[in-house]
Amino acid sequence: MGMIGGGPGAFIGEIHRLAANLDGDVQLVCGVFSRDWERTQTMAAQLGIPASRAYRSHEEMFEAEKRLPVEERMQFASIVTPNYQHFGAASDALKNGFHVVCDKPPTLSLAEVETLQQLAAQSGLLYALTFTYLGYPMVNEARQRVASGAIGKVRKVVVNYPQGWLSQPIEESGNKQASWRTDPEKSGPAGCLGDIGSHAHSLAEYISGQRVTHVCADLNTAVEHRRLDDDVSVLLKFDQGANGVLMASQISAGEENGITISVYGEKGGYRWSHVTPNTLIELDQNGPDKVLRAGSNNAYLHPSTLNMCRTPAGHPEGYLEAFANIYQRFSELVDLAHTQVDEGFGVADGVRSMRFIETVLASAKSDQKWTPLV
Amino acid sequence: MGMIGGGPGAFIGEIHRLAANLDGDVQLVCGVFSRDWERTQTMAAQLGIPASRAYRSHEEMFEAEKRLPVEERMQFASIVTPNYQHFGAASDALKNGFHVVCDKPPTLSLAEVETLQQLAAQSGLLYALTFTYLGYPMVNEARQRVASGAIGKVRKVVVNYPQGWLSQPIEESGNKQASWRTDPEKSGPAGCLGDIGSHAHSLAEYISGQRVTHVCADLNTAVEHRRLDDDVSVLLKFDQGANGVLMASQISAGEENGITISVYGEKGGYRWSHVTPNTLIELDQNGPDKVLRAGSNNAYLHPSTLNMCRTPAGHPEGYLEAFANIYQRFSELVDLAHTQVDEGFGVADGVRSMRFIETVLASAKSDQKWTPLV
Amino acid sequence: MGMIGGGPGAFIGEIHRLAANLDGDVQLVCGVFSRDWERTQTMAAQLGIPASRAYRSHEEMFEAEKRLPVEERMQFASIVTPNYQHFGAASDALKNGFHVVCDKPPTLSLAEVETLQQLAAQSGLLYALTFTYLGYPMVNEARQRVASGAIGKVRKVVVNYPQGWLSQPIEESGNKQASWRTDPEKSGPAGCLGDIGSHAHSLAEYISGQRVTHVCADLNTAVEHRRLDDDVSVLLKFDQGANGVLMASQISAGEENGITISVYGEKGGYRWSHVTPNTLIELDQNGPDKVLRAGSNNAYLHPSTLNMCRTPAGHPEGYLEAFANIYQRFSELVDLAHTQVDEGFGVADGVRSMRFIETVLASAKSDQKWTPLV
Amino acid sequence: MGMIGGGPGAFIGEIHRLAANLDGDVQLVCGVFSRDWERTQTMAAQLGIPASRAYRSHEEMFEAEKRLPVEERMQFASIVTPNYQHFGAASDALKNGFHVVCDKPPTLSLAEVETLQQLAAQSGLLYALTFTYLGYPMVNEARQRVASGAIGKVRKVVVNYPQGWLSQPIEESGNKQASWRTDPEKSGPAGCLGDIGSHAHSLAEYISGQRVTHVCADLNTAVEHRRLDDDVSVLLKFDQGANGVLMASQISAGEENGITISVYGEKGGYRWSHVTPNTLIELDQNGPDKVLRAGSNNAYLHPSTLNMCRTPAGHPEGYLEAFANIYQRFSELVDLAHTQVDEGFGVADGVRSMRFIETVLASAKSDQKWTPLV
Repeated sequence: MGMIGGGPGAFIGEIHRLAANLDGDVQLVCGVFSRDWERTQTMAAQLGIPASRAYRSHEEMFEAEKRLPVEERMQFASIVTPNYQHFGAASDALKNGFHVVCDKPPTLSLAEVETLQQLAAQSGLLYALTFTYLGYPMVNEARQRVASGAIGKVRKVVVNYPQGWLSQPIEESGNKQASWRTDPEKSGPAGCLGDIGSHAHSLAEYISGQRVTHVCADLNTAVEHRRLDDDVSVLLKFDQGANGVLMASQISAGEENGITISVYGEKGGYRWSHVTPNTLIELDQNGPDKVLRAGSNNAYLHPSTLNMCRTPAGHPEGYLEAFANIYQRFSELVDLAHTQVDEGFGVADGVRSMRFIETVLASAKSDQKWTPLV
Repeated sequence: MGMIGGGPGAFIGEIHRLAANLDGDVQLVCGVFSRDWERTQTMAAQLGIPASRAYRSHEEMFEAEKRLPVEERMQFASIVTPNYQHFGAASDALKNGFHVVCDKPPTLSLAEVETLQQLAAQSGLLYALTFTYLGYPMVNEARQRVASGAIGKVRKVVVNYPQGWLSQPIEESGNKQASWRTDPEKSGPAGCLGDIGSHAHSLAEYISGQRVTHVCADLNTAVEHRRLDDDVSVLLKFDQGANGVLMASQISAGEENGITISVYGEKGGYRWSHVTPNTLIELDQNGPDKVLRAGSNNAYLHPSTLNMCRTPAGHPEGYLEAFANIYQRFSELVDLAHTQVDEGFGVADGVRSMRFIETVLASAKSDQKWTPLV
Repeated sequence: MGMIGGGPGAFIGEIHRLAANLDGDVQLVCGVFSRDWERTQTMAAQLGIPASRAYRSHEEMFEAEKRLPVEERMQFASIVTPNYQHFGAASDALKNGFHVVCDKPPTLSLAEVETLQQLAAQSGLLYALTFTYLGYPMVNEARQRVASGAIGKVRKVVVNYPQGWLSQPIEESGNKQASWRTDPEKSGPAGCLGDIGSHAHSLAEYISGQRVTHVCADLNTAVEHRRLDDDVSVLLKFDQGANGVLMASQISAGEENGITISVYGEKGGYRWSHVTPNTLIELDQNGPDKVLRAGSNNAYLHPSTLNMCRTPAGHPEGYLEAFANIYQRFSELVDLAHTQVDEGFGVADGVRSMRFIETVLASAKSDQKWTPLV
Repeated sequence: MGMIGGGPGAFIGEIHRLAANLDGDVQLVCGVFSRDWERTQTMAAQLGIPASRAYRSHEEMFEAEKRLPVEERMQFASIVTPNYQHFGAASDALKNGFHVVCDKPPTLSLAEVETLQQLAAQSGLLYALTFTYLGYPMVNEARQRVASGAIGKVRKVVVNYPQGWLSQPIEESGNKQASWRTDPEKSGPAGCLGDIGSHAHSLAEYISGQRVTHVCADLNTAVEHRRLDDDVSVLLKFDQGANGVLMASQISAGEENGITISVYGEKGGYRWSHVTPNTLIELDQNGPDKVLRAGSNNAYLHPSTLNMCRTPAGHPEGYLEAFANIYQRFSELVDLAHTQVDEGFGVADGVRSMRFIETVLASAKSDQKWTPLV
């Protein structure tokens, strides 16, 4: 793979590299790690990438790599830049014949991601978004069990994603992560909403198997002078009758990254929390809760969940492994010459995600209670 | 005390009796336990109350007790009937010179509770509501610490109250608790909202020290043919700038009674959960979380919290003890001839609670996003 | 009941009173609360006991009470003094025709408790020990399920009882609880061993259904100048083949009162912890763990467990309720004119407990690995 | 690196490969994956290792690799075979100039590991053992804080390592992991003791900073016909006055791999559990517990702990990352041409580990209570 973004000090770029590398199936062969040429060179050297395959721009990278023999050239682009560069990099990759893995959100606007959808369809190339939390084995298990009807029809979805790291105006004192994330030029019109609200939305639909049809949003900016929302509350209606509540906040002081979700059906429910990611609680209205646990040896798990476990129960896997599951699956699909990634991770999901973001933004400005998400 | 309601098989009446009795300061001396005279007699016998002080109606009870010498007669009425009888019993008690402890919600309507407020003011008698969760030591500790500015200005309140016991239409198969709670004649216009949403609202204001000014509500009835809401989601705005999310649901299949609240300020937050009621997590954006624990020997707790603990740390107290704290404090105020109960438990709080309920009901019917709570 | 001990400032006396009173079945009618006559009078006044039934000594109390009409007099003595007074009070009670409830350990020596056993047998009176933890519903549930064979033959028992309150020599600075507990004259030859090790032993046998046959003990005194052990580690062998580890320590700095036990059989196990007393984890080697929960409405629980629950699931009960379960059951047996209390709580269990203590003390002094407990 | 062991279906070999690869600093270049030449070839192909560097024996591998140019040849051997092959492979590696990483236990006997110690000293080569749990950031944090005197002198260490996977005689039905681990020819004279008891011992010494001087052991074999111990209980004395309890069991039915440790000092303690590896509880006898959390951004952590974190707080790391920390540090030491690995991981620790194992075996056979560990 070739990476775009992820220069020295970047958080998510390093995560992508560790994750892509974890199972040994993906090799990082080239990259544009920064808009600063020197930083790209430094990073390439540090990563053991030959100087010849450190590039000044993604355009240059695609041009050069295309000319390499098939077995040598990068197979796909991994886009880990701030949001505003996603679209350009992804569309150019697709136009030049490269598959794409992109960090979420896919683009700054719905229009852009729809363009990507067309490009992907026309090219037959794979486009995947790293909705990290969907890469956790026990999230998959919840989805499979809900789909199997284990808890009956889903009625209620509650997803909370509290973070505290933007409780103070740290973008004003040079925090790099905070700076671009609170800058509408780089992050797009959604702050916390795009950064983590999008994860919460994707997780809610993924596990419940239902799709949001209406939103009623309250967006706030708790920190003075901040230019984007840092706190999001949304009421939800789903297409098969469930309702829900989504909370995402980056001013929940003291919280780390504790996304939790509860999904309730007629007979029971599921609870999953990122703090204890290898555990899924199965609630039963008529009997004791069950503690389902990740583990390659837990035969009661769905085969697709077992596939996502590297270690037997009791040997905790975490964030990198969840991320790696996405890369590993993507790499497998590339090898199998598939033309579509799995539901939840594809360009259509990117379209849904951007539509969700734009609809929530519209709802936040509206005096009407419900804004439809079409 | 004299009890109104709480006949054989009633849940909350038994809880009130156990709680009132727990510390030995309150004695149950008379009662009308049921509208069925035989059941009242049975209950009285069972409770060791002389037959002469089992009454056919609360009117009869008040009349008879008034005529007893002061040191013998009941000092206050404990009202634990279904909601629709609260107002009549409470207003008659106040008119006849008896203090009142009443289960929440105080009445079926705002107008009624405002009448009680006038009666209480005129009579100088005490009127208290058993907002149970406010009786927990660590809820008090959170309130005290927030008030002291420990976490800075409160910005966000998230309160979730999931129950699962009404996931199925058990009111149709004779469940007594479910029957009156889902019957608008007996429960009033609010179902889940009045039953547990009112607790969530009271807890949110009590800990945050802020008051709800606007609500945006989504009320649902998940179970077919049910006549009242069984699921509540509300966005909140508070008077000092916080916003919030309140979820209360009785169709969260598999959940017991796990009310949880998180309150976030500029520097940190507090998390409390009814599942582990003796623990309060103090979140700090710049350091490790602290695990504050109930216990009569934990000198770091607020004096008023220590007052609410009967046992040293590590000897768990629970629901009855929380309830008992309310009775014990009420009994103390009666003895001290106070004319007002503590903030959070008084008739003014009952007024706020009914106003909250009516405003949420109005909001649920409205197409407008925000409905002011005045 | 009449109480012996439990003067102002006593911990366990107050607990016994709250517990005995909780369900309304037991009435405290008289007492000798202190060896100091003034303190006894003060306490009696505070508890609403008539001056005529505050006594100078237990001898005086038994004499006086015997002369009262049967329906007025105390039915049983509740002994909550420091250990060294247990035997005298209990034996006199039995000799005078009164049943006995006594805090553990029953006596200072095995010989003494064997005398009590004879007295109880001769008199046909009830003698019960408040092994508090056996009063928890989920401890009973574990015992019942183990007995039913749910996990197969028990192979391993691990019980840990860490406390931290004696980490410093607080007996030297006037802490009353610490003073008598570290004084061999008042506490007997066992310190931590008698105080909490005895609870751990009783819990281990109660749940496993097996009896300790051999011990290998390491007793330590971590705090300089302390006169009794404050830290206990024991290897155990049981009569049906299980082995075990028992740890009890009062110098586990920072710990509250977190006794935990794990019992493992051929197919699964049970885990219970006093920190979350309403939860029992059922381990299954071939499937997910189950989270069993106390609650009067949890039909999957054993009938005897349901009997011990006052509230529905999700309304936490605690230490006082566990204690109260013991009093309530005792009071029921008195009413039914039984001549024996339930296994786990009786004088035979007191004999076993003292034998355990004496054997552990002997083992601690021995160079031999195993000391038989006959 | 070149790997010895870890053929198809092996558990720990795959873990070593994933861990070594995780940070991209170590490359697997050759190997003898099985004693079966076909399986080695299959594995090599699967791992992308050129056929020319798949070897028939470790002797052949060392010979061949020595002849390669320095920059091409393997730098160190990773030994992941069943125990009985450790010594031969490690001693040959050292004799042929290759550093060694070996899974624990180092050898089958103390004599063997002492030979390795001499070989390592003579050769100036690095020898490291993968005591996995020492690779967790929060284990390191506990060690650093204890060493800094944060809790005063350590008095008590309690380490429990329950597993359930050998509850049934699965070695008789072809389970490969179970077969060699219960076979004295392949596993050595210690079963559960060598497999996981050794981890518990290493963790106890590592965090407490004290060394075991005496043991009193009870070894059991719960499963009929099993040829080695499957359950271990040991009382411990340490060189600076602490005492302890170590439990390791593979017949704790229903348990996964939940090693937990509590270390208590004069003023407080630390609790760490493998089930929640990113959390370290700091107990304080005089104040609330603190919840210390792994995370590259948690400035309150020791610098060496921060070094072990790849992700910010709230992005869980797990078993592979802990393992990878050991490989990464080893690889760094190789690059820096150090001649010793860090305390806890070196050959001297291997010697201590084997001495512990042999002493526990001797103690288990002895009638004397204490057996010295010299």
